Amino acid sequence: MLSKKEIKDIQSLGHKKNRDELGCFLAEGPKMVAEFIQLLPESIVKIYAVQEWIRENESKLKQLPVQEISPVELVRLSQMQTPHQVLCILKQSDHKEPVVKDAFSIYLDAIQDPGNLGTIIRIADWFGINQVICTPGCADCYNPKVVQASMASIARVSVFYDEAAAWLKSQTEVVYAAVLNGKPLYDFKKATSGILLIGNESRGISNELLKLATEKLTIPKKGNAESLNAAVATGIILSHLIA
Amino acid sequence: MLSKKEIKDIQSLGHKKNRDELGCFLAEGPKMVAEFIQLLPESIVKIYAVQEWIRENESKLKQLPVQEISPVELVRLSQMQTPHQVLCILKQSDHKEPVVKDAFSIYLDAIQDPGNLGTIIRIADWFGINQVICTPGCADCYNPKVVQASMASIARVSVFYDEAAAWLKSQTEVVYAAVLNGKPLYDFKKATSGILLIGNESRGISNELLKLATEKLTIPKKGNAESLNAAVATGIILSHLIA
Repeated sequence: MLSKKEIKDIQSLGHKKNRDELGCFLAEGPKMVAEFIQLLPESIVKIYAVQEWIRENESKLKQLPVQEISPVELVRLSQMQTPHQVLCILKQSDHKEPVVKDAFSIYLDAIQDPGNLGTIIRIADWFGINQVICTPGCADCYNPKVVQASMASIARVSVFYDEAAAWLKSQTEVVYAAVLNGKPLYDFKKATSGILLIGNESRGISNELLKLATEKLTIPKKGNAESLNAAVATGIILSHLIA
Repeated sequence: MLSKKEIKDIQSLGHKKNRDELGCFLAEGPKMVAEFIQLLPESIVKIYAVQEWIRENESKLKQLPVQEISPVELVRLSQMQTPHQVLCILKQSDHKEPVVKDAFSIYLDAIQDPGNLGTIIRIADWFGINQVICTPGCADCYNPKVVQASMASIARVSVFYDEAAAWLKSQTEVVYAAVLNGKPLYDFKKATSGILLIGNESRGISNELLKLATEKLTIPKKGNAESLNAAVATGIILSHLIA
């Protein structure tokens, strides 16, 4: 049985302040936890799971710290509406800054919706992009909703926060800015490297960052919607742009 | 001031059963309500707004039924975490079945997440698609989260529910099914009509519907994510496919 303190500590990971203090975050559900066990076992601090899950996964667990909990305890620990069998506490990555050269990166300006950020991390992973750089105005990448929406891609894609756009300003790659009045996306040639700049859900890209763009592109509109969801736009642009 | 009964009736529109009984749904926020006033004024049953909004919009309101409410009442009526100034009750459309010929349609198999359904309706609207057909297993298109995620595109795109796939079975258009092991998307030519079939978030397209597909297509994967979000996939495919 878990102590009251332990339950409180785990629940506290729902808040950014506590995640930062402890350098940890939560991942939930069998699929997600399986990915972390396979890809980043060294980042696992502790797994909390119901008996059934432990029995089914015994062979993969090896030296990993696992504690059996009751279904009632799982509900108390979980950040999800319908918790599934297992959750685990993970160490946050300690990447200091983006390092990938001659590749594609995604740069997000104040993407505030956790679902959008997680979905964009998943899109990056689908298109073989290893890093997503965020302005400080973006959601926290260790927010449980981001982790969930990333569908474990957060274990494969590095996410960095760029203070005062210092990193972006230092880059020499082509910076493609997604805007509503740019050159049609379909006029751009495929590329093997570059930085795709995506703006805030309602305000778009800030003027300061827009000045750093070398190209402005737009997904041609055929109907009447005012704009596209930020994650959907990211997917469409990468699908066209990435060689 | 609103009566307790009126407050309860409006709040009850958060539930499908009550929406169906009353044939109504809710839309919230200045942007959304403005679109309905412009596009579908005849569908507006009643607008509830704070003083400030009414003052700013007086010239557009004409004969529309508006009631002023206090900010506290707005919070009580709203389905959103941070309500904005106005909400309105709308009549559901009474379209009986899809009618568009020689055009593109989207057919959704059990898209359960309201955010995904709303985002797909918004994508349809961006690409000039006028109808989205849903299996009964999809979320309710009048769910407040769907309406919200559609960003008012629900006012322009007709959504139908196809019992037992009767409509789909009667079609002679090309049916493009989005699957994980089909022909690469980029091998397909642009088209001016057809039906894009998108499957459930975790199970994909049911076997029954898959039999009705004339083409199976896949977005080529360059990285490691297992799949893409259903709305993101819809956007990428339409961006490539629609002439």
